Amino acid sequence: MSGRPLDVLEASLNEPVTVHLKDGDAYYGVLAGYDQHMNVVLEEALDDEAVPGDIELRQVEDTTIIRGDNVVTIKA
Amino acid sequence: MSGRPLDVLEASLNEPVTVHLKDGDAYYGVLAGYDQHMNVVLEEALDDEAVPGDIELRQVEDTTIIRGDNVVTIKA
Amino acid sequence: MSGRPLDVLEASLNEPVTVHLKDGDAYYGVLAGYDQHMNVVLEEALDDEAVPGDIELRQVEDTTIIRGDNVVTIKA
Amino acid sequence: MSGRPLDVLEASLNEPVTVHLKDGDAYYGVLAGYDQHMNVVLEEALDDEAVPGDIELRQVEDTTIIRGDNVVTIKA
Amino acid sequence: MSGRPLDVLEASLNEPVTVHLKDGDAYYGVLAGYDQHMNVVLEEALDDEAVPGDIELRQVEDTTIIRGDNVVTIKA
Amino acid sequence: MSGRPLDVLEASLNEPVTVHLKDGDAYYGVLAGYDQHMNVVLEEALDDEAVPGDIELRQVEDTTIIRGDNVVTIKA
Amino acid sequence: MSGRPLDVLEASLNEPVTVHLKDGDAYYGVLAGYDQHMNVVLEEALDDEAVPGDIELRQVEDTTIIRGDNVVTIKA
Repeated sequence: MSGRPLDVLEASLNEPVTVHLKDGDAYYGVLAGYDQHMNVVLEEALDDEAVPGDIELRQVEDTTIIRGDNVVTIKA
Repeated sequence: MSGRPLDVLEASLNEPVTVHLKDGDAYYGVLAGYDQHMNVVLEEALDDEAVPGDIELRQVEDTTIIRGDNVVTIKA
Repeated sequence: MSGRPLDVLEASLNEPVTVHLKDGDAYYGVLAGYDQHMNVVLEEALDDEAVPGDIELRQVEDTTIIRGDNVVTIKA
Repeated sequence: MSGRPLDVLEASLNEPVTVHLKDGDAYYGVLAGYDQHMNVVLEEALDDEAVPGDIELRQVEDTTIIRGDNVVTIKA
Repeated sequence: MSGRPLDVLEASLNEPVTVHLKDGDAYYGVLAGYDQHMNVVLEEALDDEAVPGDIELRQVEDTTIIRGDNVVTIKA
Repeated sequence: MSGRPLDVLEASLNEPVTVHLKDGDAYYGVLAGYDQHMNVVLEEALDDEAVPGDIELRQVEDTTIIRGDNVVTIKA
Repeated sequence: MSGRPLDVLEASLNEPVTVHLKDGDAYYGVLAGYDQHMNVVLEEALDDEAVPGDIELRQVEDTTIIRGDNVVTIKA
């Protein structure tokens, strides 16, 4: 899953990802879409058991657009 | 309602959305418009019963333009 | 008055608007102009009785240009 | 003096303006120039009696360039 | 390994790098990709013994995209 | 020395200027160069007596490039 | 070594420079590269005696890319 940043996002479509934001929040969900600004769309992950143990993590329950300029890291 | 971020906004037109801003405020209203900067236009939601229980949420009463660079997340 | 953000501004020309800024200030005045950066021009509203009751609101007394990158919301 | 933001600046050339900055400072001077970024050039106003009574206002004594990204408002 | 910044990144592909961010965090991993915004992709370094002794350093365990606007320095 | 902001910089080449930055620092030196981002190059002013009395002012001793996005004002 | 900002960087290639960042850190090293965003590449300076006496200065030990948007000044 190596490659340029947008290639990694493309390869991660329909896979669970964790997105850490500048305000300290983190979101966990299935990557449903993205664009060149690193705006991303997350949807609820069906398999709850896959949620990492991070207590500050927000599991996405809806379709959530995250504006790219808030993103610090996206972990595939 | 998956897809690229602007596709999700397009699919959410005339539907209620919740917009969380960098200053901690959140707005709830019907998505009346958007552009490629994620500037959005919200209008008052007619069905009050649809307002989520979040106590910090500001239900839009007028036509409100939110400048996109304030946005953290938009939940459809 | 729905539509894309700049369409809403166009439709609001010569109408009173309230502009909330990132520094917490808010300005009330008649929308005299705008551009694609959401820079706006406000002029004094003639009808004082139209000023909303918000105590922090600054009623514009002169022609005032507000640089768009300060804007959080514009309410028409 | 209504119109688009840059039209208002054009109409304000050689007129006194007050520029409020994000750091809380405010400058008073004659508008000698501007560009599309809202970078502005202020020069000393000859008529001291025209200075508004705002105690935090800095009356420009030299030719002063203000970089546009610091600007909150320009009052003509 | 001298040259322009993106040339240094190109030369560092598949090599361990340390990325220091504006929030004070630092990430250590193998550089798997980058783009012109200095968005980078790090992957887990196989040779643990290569991790520098910095106690605040986060060794990457997954494929991690870091959005370029968070970066202060990248040390090759 | 009036005119558009970059015209004022052009007219100020080889003249002493004071550059105030967002972090509160101020630099005094001869303007040796600039570009369209308001990045500027200052060099040491030969005539020490020309240094204004501002106690926080840093007189440039070397060739110093100041990145334009730090600039609040440039006084010619 | 006067001229436009990027001309000064070009003239400073393979010479020691000091780069002051917005977070208060400063880096000392040989300028190995740069680009139009003022992203710079520093390498270790061979002649330790050339390090200025500034106690907060970080002498570069590796090839270090500094992202340009962190830069306040570059002193040649």
